Order: sequence, then C-alpha cells, then structure tokens
Amino acid sequence: MINRCKVKNVKKISDIILFHEETRGEAFLRQLEGKNPLFVCTIGNTETAKIPGISAAGKYPELTDYTPPADVELLLLGKCKCIQGVPVTPDGIPTPAIITMSALKLANIPALVASGGLKVNPHVPFLDLGGKPGKDISTGKAVDNVKGVVQKAIIAGENLAKTADYLVIGESIPGGTTTALGILLAMGVDAEGKVSSSMPGNPHKLKIKTVEAGLKALGVKFGALASEPLKAISCVGDPMMPAFAGLVLGAADKIPVLMAGGTQMGAILAVVKALNTDVLDNVAIGTTRWILIDKTADLKGIITQIADVPILAADLDFSRSKFEGLRAYEAGVVKEGVGAGGAAIAAMAKSAGSITKDTLLREIEKNYEQLVGSK
Amino acid sequence: MINRCKVKNVKKISDIILFHEETRGEAFLRQLEGKNPLFVCTIGNTETAKIPGISAAGKYPELTDYTPPADVELLLLGKCKCIQGVPVTPDGIPTPAIITMSALKLANIPALVASGGLKVNPHVPFLDLGGKPGKDISTGKAVDNVKGVVQKAIIAGENLAKTADYLVIGESIPGGTTTALGILLAMGVDAEGKVSSSMPGNPHKLKIKTVEAGLKALGVKFGALASEPLKAISCVGDPMMPAFAGLVLGAADKIPVLMAGGTQMGAILAVVKALNTDVLDNVAIGTTRWILIDKTADLKGIITQIADVPILAADLDFSRSKFEGLRAYEAGVVKEGVGAGGAAIAAMAKSAGSITKDTLLREIEKNYEQLVGSK
Repeated sequence: MINRCKVKNVKKISDIILFHEETRGEAFLRQLEGKNPLFVCTIGNTETAKIPGISAAGKYPELTDYTPPADVELLLLGKCKCIQGVPVTPDGIPTPAIITMSALKLANIPALVASGGLKVNPHVPFLDLGGKPGKDISTGKAVDNVKGVVQKAIIAGENLAKTADYLVIGESIPGGTTTALGILLAMGVDAEGKVSSSMPGNPHKLKIKTVEAGLKALGVKFGALASEPLKAISCVGDPMMPAFAGLVLGAADKIPVLMAGGTQMGAILAVVKALNTDVLDNVAIGTTRWILIDKTADLKGIITQIADVPILAADLDFSRSKFEGLRAYEAGVVKEGVGAGGAAIAAMAKSAGSITKDTLLREIEKNYEQLVGSK
Repeated sequence: MINRCKVKNVKKISDIILFHEETRGEAFLRQLEGKNPLFVCTIGNTETAKIPGISAAGKYPELTDYTPPADVELLLLGKCKCIQGVPVTPDGIPTPAIITMSALKLANIPALVASGGLKVNPHVPFLDLGGKPGKDISTGKAVDNVKGVVQKAIIAGENLAKTADYLVIGESIPGGTTTALGILLAMGVDAEGKVSSSMPGNPHKLKIKTVEAGLKALGVKFGALASEPLKAISCVGDPMMPAFAGLVLGAADKIPVLMAGGTQMGAILAVVKALNTDVLDNVAIGTTRWILIDKTADLKGIITQIADVPILAADLDFSRSKFEGLRAYEAGVVKEGVGAGGAAIAAMAKSAGSITKDTLLREIEKNYEQLVGSK
C-alpha cells in the first residue's frame, strides 16, 4: 500500500518545504517566525459532495453534512460532539483535523470557526456570515448571497487582523475540490486533471462531468466568468469560498495570511485576485508534502496560472507511524484539509525550532490513539 | 432639563474614575495601559423588553428586536443596516453605541459580536453560541439552552484570550435591567430599587412586579437560586447573560476582563461568581459617570453584595455638547449600554494619554452629526 515519494530538489527551512517562489516564500516564512497567529477554519456544505463517488470526506455521502462541524469540534474541543468518533473516509482513514488540532495544541494557537453555510451547526461557537448550504453545482445555481457573505467576511478579516500577527485560514467542505474545479474553469484557469482529491484514485472524469453540467446549464464557457468571481461562486462554487476569500481580503491588507489547503486554494486565489490584486503580496499557500507529491493533481500548475504566490509545505512524514490510519496518508489518502499543512507550518514557525515534524507526529499519534484507537 | 451631578471625593487617573475598590482598580487599570484589547459585544433579545413602559432601548416596544443588531452594525460598519438611522429612545435620544463606536475607532480597537439569541440577525459577522431569543420573564421560563450557550462562550473566551492583552465585554439587550433584577433577586442580592434604567424615570415598580410574577410562577423565593445560576438565567434571565458570563469565565482565567456596563453587570458577576470564584481577581467593572450619579439606582450597592471587584468609570461629560441628543445623557437618559463606558476606558488606557474625555467627545459629536443630524 505504501508508495512514498520524496519531494526532490527543494529547499527546506527546518521542516518546512519552500516549493514554489522560493525567495518570496522564505521571506514570507521569516515574517512568521516566533509570531502569534490566529487559525480560522472556514466551513460549509455543498450538495455536490453527495454525488456518489465524488468525496471521501465522510464514510457515506449523507454523512458529509457532519464532516465540517465534526472537524471544528475536534479543533476546539479535542473531540467531536455531533458524531461519534471522528470523520473518516469510506476506508476508515481519519480526518486531517487530527493534524490541525495537534499542531494548534502543541503551539498554543487560538482558533475560530467561520461558517459560509452549514447543514448542521457545530457544538462550538462559530462566526455566522449569513450564508446557506450550497446546492449541487451541476444545476449551475450553487450558492446564495455570495456578495453578502464576502462583505461580512471582509469585516471579520479586518477586525481579526488587529488581533493576531498573521492569520492561517483553513477549510473543511466535502466536495470542495470539485467546486474548486468549477471556479477555476469558469474563471479561465486550466485545471482539468489538476485538482486533488481525498481519495487515492482521483475521480477526475466525474468532477469534470459535474462542472461541465453546471457550466452548460448556465450557457457559460471556460473563462467566461474570469472577471466575475462572485457570479462564478454563485453558479459553480461552494459556500466556504466567499467566507474564505472575504477573510483573506479583509486581513491581508494589514497582516500576512497563510492560505492553508491544497488545490482548492487555487480557486480562492483566483477569486481574491479578481477582487483585489493588491493583497496578493501578503499571502502564501501553506500545504502538506502529500499534496506536492500527488501524481493525480498539480497544485503548482494551477497556482502559476493565477499569481506569483509562494507555496510552502509542512514536510510531514507518516511512513514510520505505528498507526495504519496515519501511514495511509503516505499512499495518497486524505492528504490535506482543515488547514492541516498550514497549521503545522504555523506551529513550527511559532516554536523557534522546538516543534518539528517528529514532535508533531508524536502529538498526532497520541491524539490519534485517544480518538481513533490502536489500529 | 440639565441636572448635572459631579461624582464627589473620587480619585481619577486621567479621565477614568476609580469609584470602588480604588487600590485594586488602579492596579487593574495599570495593567491595561498601552495594551491591546479586544472588544466583544454580546447581544440578545428578550420578550421582557416589550412589556409597555419597561425599556427605552427602542422607540416602540416592537422595535427593540432591532436594537441589538443595529447597535453592532454601528460598531462594525459605522452605520446601521437593519434600520434607518440609529436606535433611539422614545424621545429620540440616540444609542450609546455611538460612544462605543467612537472610542473603538479612535483607538483602533478590534470588535467582535457574540449572540446569545436574536430575533433579527445583524448584517455583520457574529459568533453564534447556539442560543435563542428569550421569553418574558414573568412566565418564569425565560431562556432555553443556558448551559449549552455558557459552554460555547467559555470555548470562545478561552480562544479569544490568546488573541488580545485583555477583553472588554459589553452588551446590548433591551429590557436587560429588568432581567438583571430577576437574576439578582433569585440569587439573593438585594437589588430592589437599585437597578438602573435607560429612562430618567426608572420604572422600579413595573420591574419588580415583572420579576415577582416570574418568581411566583416558579414558586421560587428571594435567594432560592443562589447556587444555581444557570437555572436562575433559564427562569428569569435573558439570553445575553450566558454568552457574557461564559466569555468572562473562559477569558478571565488568562487575561484581565473589563465587564462593560451598568447594573446589569451585577447579574453577570453573580453568575460568574457562582460558577468560578477564582476568576473574580481578574475582572473589573467599567462603566460611565452617568451610572455613578444615577439617583434612581445603586451600582455599588449591588456589586458590594457580590464580590470585591473594582468599579471604573469613564468620566464622560456631555453637558457642553452642541447636540441636544448628547446633552440629554446628563439628564439621565440612556446613561450606558453597548459597553460604552468600558470602550471609552479602553480607548483612553490604550492611547497613553492622547485620548481624553475631550477628544472622545469631539469624535462622538462628529459621528453623531453624520448619523443623527444637527439637533
């Protein structure tokens, strides 16, 4: 099962990989060292996740309604309340929120939750941004009230920027790579076959078919919404996007923002760029090594089409973990989500060297054992 | 109309009055100097506000549903969105949120909103704590899910405590002094004739009659719920209280908390004390001079029955304002609310002397003119 790849020819600072725009990435990272971040997890639901075979972020499609609230409960409470156990893939591999939670805990990083539109509310406080759950993007009518949510998220971002040295923003929304593909194609970024997946067998054909159905329903072609990011989201996006993009727009004007995620960050970046190019100088993408080595996707190939922002990655390595459910990450299951890579980067940057990939793995294993068991 | 009283024989630090527990108050204030606070406005609605004659926080009783969302819109947007103009008393005197907004703006203090249960959502982001609007306390069944809201607010408080040097927590809930009286009597604090009012003619008899109806419906006597604060809130409190108390409990364990308000702070303090006396060392009450000179109420008489916490007050003086709607504050209209006094104290403490009662008044008048007009 294990088919581990190393990322070759990359510069590292401690256990953080400078994967793209190395010089700017290093400068960005130096700004974070020893500083106090705030982690914000944006969440939402889209019916797109319930298309059979499209998402592994939930054991059954109907369970994906519970994945975002369960993930943020894990971050804030150390356990889930709306479900038993933790969110798992159909094969039982646990949520990357375990990584995020471990990183935040080790480095004593505060966390807030921002909802763009949920089916099930979490048993923890969350910023309500006035959004609603999203519909299946194949209808071409995916998200209501995009502008209102963006405006509220900007206000939140502006205020939160005064409370932290930098923000790390993550996401949890099952089906999110498919909706990301929707935005990227609608906005003219060639992302076919490039978005990632929580499953090792990335269902590209199904994703493209779903997006194409949405674009067809609208009578919209590749790139037709390049300068209409809000319309793109309302047609073929998801409700996490206006929350995430608004937070970046509100905060990155004043402080650095680490956009924590995989290929979905391409969609957010495209939206942010179309609304305010000025803030791009103050953002970087923070992800995991598993995204970089994903042969079924191409994060760099997406990002370079949009903007010259650095890509940083936590050099996490679970190949020698004692738990099968963590070793599975090396085989391309899950890979990223809930801001796992960005949270790991922030924990390492805050600790001045005392938190490494090894200390993180030990903390993750400790929490894994408590939450999942001994397998 | 103007019947101005000076507070006599009190020590001041700059324009902040040390009204009670002077030595501890001074020590508390010294901790805040030059530091970066976060202002959190807790909001909620109770049907108690619609009892004719009980609240002036809204021109008509039914308009009080809009007062809390309009107040926080003013704080975060600089204008209201859910209503035209700003909230006013039946005589047209504007909300103290104008003071709060001016203080936060002058001192560049970030603000968040936390809802304990609303009838109308604001057009700004707010922390949803899972609460619902409250019922009329004369039923004896005032608030649902008190424990759940307190637990969520504690989580929020713990996380926000890592983002700021101290918290300033305010409130906006029409009818709040009546529900405060309910909690104080249920918990054994003699507050009859001591709670304040947004009206110069304080309707004590009506308030007591309302609370007594609630206690009678429950078969509960004075002090019977002294050790059951959550039950007291669920019976005769309001939904702002569990949000406010939970935030204090979560944050004051780690950082100072300025409880910003008038006699309602007595009810919060009683609840906090009953749940965790340890945090009382790290809290103070921050209010306005108008509360101290209110002859129809007795803040100190309430607080001294509960705990030895300092009372600080912003020495605001509107007697020479060019606007009638501000001069009315000197006649005992409005007096406090939306954390006005605490926000003014925080602005002065942050500025190392550059923000005074005079600079504040100028900023308040500027915003008043824009928002209310020239009267």
